[in-house]
Amino acid sequence: MTTRPLAAIVLAAGQGTRMKSDLHKVLHPIAGRPMLGHLLASVGELAPARTMVVVGARREQVEAFATPLGAEIVEQREQLGTGHAVAQAEAALGGFAGDVLILYGDVPLVRADTMRAMVERLHGDDAPAAVVLGFRPADPGAYGRVIADASGRIAKMVEYKDASSDERAVDLCNSGLMAVRGEDLFALLARVGNANAAGEYYLPDIVMLAEEDGRHSAVIETGVAEVTGVNSRGELAALEGQWQTARRAQAMVDGATLIAPDTVWFSHDTKIGRDVTIEPNVVFGPGVTVADGATIHAFSHLEGATVGARADVGPYARLRPGAVLGETARVGNFVEVKNATLGVGAKANHLSYIGDAEVGAKANIGAGTITCNYDGFFKYRTSIGAGAFIGSNSALVAPVSIGAGAIVGAGSTVTQDVEGDALALVRAPQTAKPGWAARFRQMMAARKAAK
Amino acid sequence: MTTRPLAAIVLAAGQGTRMKSDLHKVLHPIAGRPMLGHLLASVGELAPARTMVVVGARREQVEAFATPLGAEIVEQREQLGTGHAVAQAEAALGGFAGDVLILYGDVPLVRADTMRAMVERLHGDDAPAAVVLGFRPADPGAYGRVIADASGRIAKMVEYKDASSDERAVDLCNSGLMAVRGEDLFALLARVGNANAAGEYYLPDIVMLAEEDGRHSAVIETGVAEVTGVNSRGELAALEGQWQTARRAQAMVDGATLIAPDTVWFSHDTKIGRDVTIEPNVVFGPGVTVADGATIHAFSHLEGATVGARADVGPYARLRPGAVLGETARVGNFVEVKNATLGVGAKANHLSYIGDAEVGAKANIGAGTITCNYDGFFKYRTSIGAGAFIGSNSALVAPVSIGAGAIVGAGSTVTQDVEGDALALVRAPQTAKPGWAARFRQMMAARKAAK
Amino acid sequence: MTTRPLAAIVLAAGQGTRMKSDLHKVLHPIAGRPMLGHLLASVGELAPARTMVVVGARREQVEAFATPLGAEIVEQREQLGTGHAVAQAEAALGGFAGDVLILYGDVPLVRADTMRAMVERLHGDDAPAAVVLGFRPADPGAYGRVIADASGRIAKMVEYKDASSDERAVDLCNSGLMAVRGEDLFALLARVGNANAAGEYYLPDIVMLAEEDGRHSAVIETGVAEVTGVNSRGELAALEGQWQTARRAQAMVDGATLIAPDTVWFSHDTKIGRDVTIEPNVVFGPGVTVADGATIHAFSHLEGATVGARADVGPYARLRPGAVLGETARVGNFVEVKNATLGVGAKANHLSYIGDAEVGAKANIGAGTITCNYDGFFKYRTSIGAGAFIGSNSALVAPVSIGAGAIVGAGSTVTQDVEGDALALVRAPQTAKPGWAARFRQMMAARKAAK
Repeated sequence: MTTRPLAAIVLAAGQGTRMKSDLHKVLHPIAGRPMLGHLLASVGELAPARTMVVVGARREQVEAFATPLGAEIVEQREQLGTGHAVAQAEAALGGFAGDVLILYGDVPLVRADTMRAMVERLHGDDAPAAVVLGFRPADPGAYGRVIADASGRIAKMVEYKDASSDERAVDLCNSGLMAVRGEDLFALLARVGNANAAGEYYLPDIVMLAEEDGRHSAVIETGVAEVTGVNSRGELAALEGQWQTARRAQAMVDGATLIAPDTVWFSHDTKIGRDVTIEPNVVFGPGVTVADGATIHAFSHLEGATVGARADVGPYARLRPGAVLGETARVGNFVEVKNATLGVGAKANHLSYIGDAEVGAKANIGAGTITCNYDGFFKYRTSIGAGAFIGSNSALVAPVSIGAGAIVGAGSTVTQDVEGDALALVRAPQTAKPGWAARFRQMMAARKAAK
Repeated sequence: MTTRPLAAIVLAAGQGTRMKSDLHKVLHPIAGRPMLGHLLASVGELAPARTMVVVGARREQVEAFATPLGAEIVEQREQLGTGHAVAQAEAALGGFAGDVLILYGDVPLVRADTMRAMVERLHGDDAPAAVVLGFRPADPGAYGRVIADASGRIAKMVEYKDASSDERAVDLCNSGLMAVRGEDLFALLARVGNANAAGEYYLPDIVMLAEEDGRHSAVIETGVAEVTGVNSRGELAALEGQWQTARRAQAMVDGATLIAPDTVWFSHDTKIGRDVTIEPNVVFGPGVTVADGATIHAFSHLEGATVGARADVGPYARLRPGAVLGETARVGNFVEVKNATLGVGAKANHLSYIGDAEVGAKANIGAGTITCNYDGFFKYRTSIGAGAFIGSNSALVAPVSIGAGAIVGAGSTVTQDVEGDALALVRAPQTAKPGWAARFRQMMAARKAAK
Repeated sequence: MTTRPLAAIVLAAGQGTRMKSDLHKVLHPIAGRPMLGHLLASVGELAPARTMVVVGARREQVEAFATPLGAEIVEQREQLGTGHAVAQAEAALGGFAGDVLILYGDVPLVRADTMRAMVERLHGDDAPAAVVLGFRPADPGAYGRVIADASGRIAKMVEYKDASSDERAVDLCNSGLMAVRGEDLFALLARVGNANAAGEYYLPDIVMLAEEDGRHSAVIETGVAEVTGVNSRGELAALEGQWQTARRAQAMVDGATLIAPDTVWFSHDTKIGRDVTIEPNVVFGPGVTVADGATIHAFSHLEGATVGARADVGPYARLRPGAVLGETARVGNFVEVKNATLGVGAKANHLSYIGDAEVGAKANIGAGTITCNYDGFFKYRTSIGAGAFIGSNSALVAPVSIGAGAIVGAGSTVTQDVEGDALALVRAPQTAKPGWAARFRQMMAARKAAK
């Protein structure tokens, strides 16, 4: 690989009108990560010296997302075409003695390997002035065509509307992505004109301008999936679906069983071990790791959670950020776990909320148990010792500590710490009124009849 | 549009044997509305003077549904063909000085615009005696063919089994839907014979009979989707799927994000705003409105509910009829809301049942809160004031009122009103028996070993 | 049908490396039943005298599953080909005077009728030496071809790599399944050599060896679906999907409405009645029966449960093994029922756990009710009489009995039996501290500001 520094310019100034959204198009997510985030992550693998994002409207949204990731923002005040957009980076990148990759914020799934290949090609055979990324769609339709020889040397770039029928018969299309040397880029762009129907400055024109200087350009190819762009919510959903299909297949190759692959939704960073079984209808939000041999039952929703080996989750389990389940731990139906650790073999099987808590190994949390972790102002922690047994329908008012081996009687609202091996009970005496229910029914039935 | 009165005759006398159902075929639902309901709604857009539904078996089921919608029931006691079925309306419609549309209860998704076009064609060029609705399926198979010239003037209607190979090569098929003048319809029907293999009276024969009178008929075309019929539960599911696919695409065009469109199920009347995000696996029953910027998380089920702007629902939220969420309100996991209003910014995040209640702005309903709204005879209301804080695992026994800014301690069963800014507590003292749990475990382990 | 005894030999010695699993490949489930289980169930319909399973690695896993089902285990220590694998059964089956079916543990969905046809063909026209099961895939690819005449008499079996272009043009492929007489099988196998690239003993070679003896073999055909094999988790999911698609179609043919068929997951033994409605996203684990007219709402999960006629389940209902719902009983959202019976018309509508219980007819279980059935050592039963009314948020500490017509007040933790028609109440008095909440808020707000 070339050792020259690299700059990436990500074009993200389009209006995105068809999205009908107040959110900038490139911030719409795929697999739980904004499109721009996918692109910046892939670019990041090439360790660029500079990353510029060219924005138009809603600059502040893109800035808030991209700046913390090390990108710089360049503004394009008027939408005068892709050539004009790239030219906006000149103030920041003029004289950059390295290679420049030109990418699109709404073409988010280009792989780092492909970007790397583009840059390498720039320094490969014949050292082309520019490298264009091409692809061959099933239906080339109205894409611009790349006329090139077998070695990838470009004879001509042609817009579909200007193409001859022979040129239209060519199925190699222009994705718009390019690699150009920093030393050449802005000089070439300065010569791009806007004498066309739209009055726009087109980036691909630099290929022709280099040709006029006696310098050729080259095309390299990639698959359609990588250069699929997003212009509407329908296309966003389609790309999401494409990403999910590939991810599901990979999970199965890696040794997980997905009973109904089409109903499992991964995030960009989901980690799934071997011999994990995932039942139908499971959603993985960002930040989830599932260790070997765990089972995720149907209708579970995990986000920011760590599931230990051979743990058993769901059905209908919701693991929220900070949920950490030890080996063979079990979280059952209608149970929410947030910012809480369950020790090895601990169980919360039914209808519980475990928030801001540590639960010791083999502790048993009865059905309907609630940790009361919030007073409207602060959050407090609950500690439950190893082997403790929390009776059903209990409320544990944090901050509170239940010692190891302690038992809390069913229906208790625990406000004071319970020492280890003790029984804690909060319960009024049971009273009975014989015959009361029969009389009540008689009275109410009469009242109902009277209505 | 013609100003003549309109009558619609909906044929719904088929046995529907393949449905294997005790429910009349035309009452099986698509998108949460009976098939007949879809058809009557579309017909209704044309403001017909009369709407007749021709039924055979299970008349009472159809009557109970259609009569309140303004339709009249006509009974066809014997199943003697479509011509015979339409003729049953003569007693009611004989001498009707207007136009008549003939529709089918099991072909439910014909659009009002198409019906309107049929009627208009009846009074258009050459004033045809009858207008047939044709379509061109991918595989014309055994459908009856419509032989017509480019202007739509019909030369011949021919059953597949009687068609020549040239006629079979024609892909314009007869949907069965027709428009005919009331002044002509019954006279033509009276001349239809049953000299065919099935011994049935066929409605399309009136085209040939008009031709004998020197009057031509015309065909207009529509897409296959609109004239797809339902004869089995498999076909019902297929039409449901077709409807859902179109509806999902429209939601995205309108500016909603559907992460997994194929897993979102709309009803016929669902209203979704702009920048609404819908996660995978959401079911909308009838009567739901979702305002701009709201998020519906995975595994939510909404019916008869109104969701305010930027509200946050689910995962695993169930909103039942009468649930009204204010702006930025939040209903979280395993929470059911029925016939209850949540004010602006109010929250019920976990494991609660909020029924027959008003919850004030910014009130916070703790995990496991239950409104006890039913005594086995009547339902009672719960009122929770603005900014109130209901501690976890509380039961509010209605009728009961919690004042604004009041706090209810965790685990309380509240039976008396709580005044504003007060603390209410219903709790027995906590008792402890040191070492009891250890002794219990010892005893039980021995007992278990002895078994 | 022939009356000779039958033996089945199931080959299950493959390594299953691509599964990347610690579980033997043939034990991976389809529709909730191990692949080997499907095969043994179909074989079982032919009442074989002997069933041998030939295993290599992980013998103990297969043995533990198959032995209780009446199969015998034969070990193949080295993987020397299918001929060698079958030969391992000689010690057990040598001299078996009956017919032998040779099957594959990873080709699980062969129907009993097909097996029967193979055996019958062995004794049909010309009494072939062996019967091969063939199929015609859409893309025959690299499958071995069966060259046969129209009557099914085999001229040649040829591996793809050895096939001429004429032979490759034949689309009849060898599934590997065979039927052979016990009197012939092992003598033929003894003559099979391993002079091929892989150094393996191939079972199909016995066809050629019989031919050398002047005895012909025959092929019978079946559909591709039946002979689809599983070598990876992706193929496992594909076969599961194929099974589910067929099962869903059958459920609709039988008179159930599946609103979204692709989102309903059946088990191998699910029984669904007529006029049952199943909403989107329902999972049936093994052992479920649903009677006529019942409705299973969205997001429900049933396993080992019996649902009575016109009962109403879900959404978000979890029925676990031993749940038995009477006619018109209702189990609503976020309710778990395990090893419990609900009588006719009984209701548990919201957020409850009903385990190890009998609930009488028309009893009403309030929201948030929990049966406390476990003390960490034993399980105990709860009995709720007919017409009883359990107030919301109650805990019933088993063993405990609530008499018929009794009422339990909301929020009660019931530890003593309640007699019929009585009111039971366990509740502390409600106390109020006026103004306390306002002072608390002031204090906490100050504390928060100070942080």
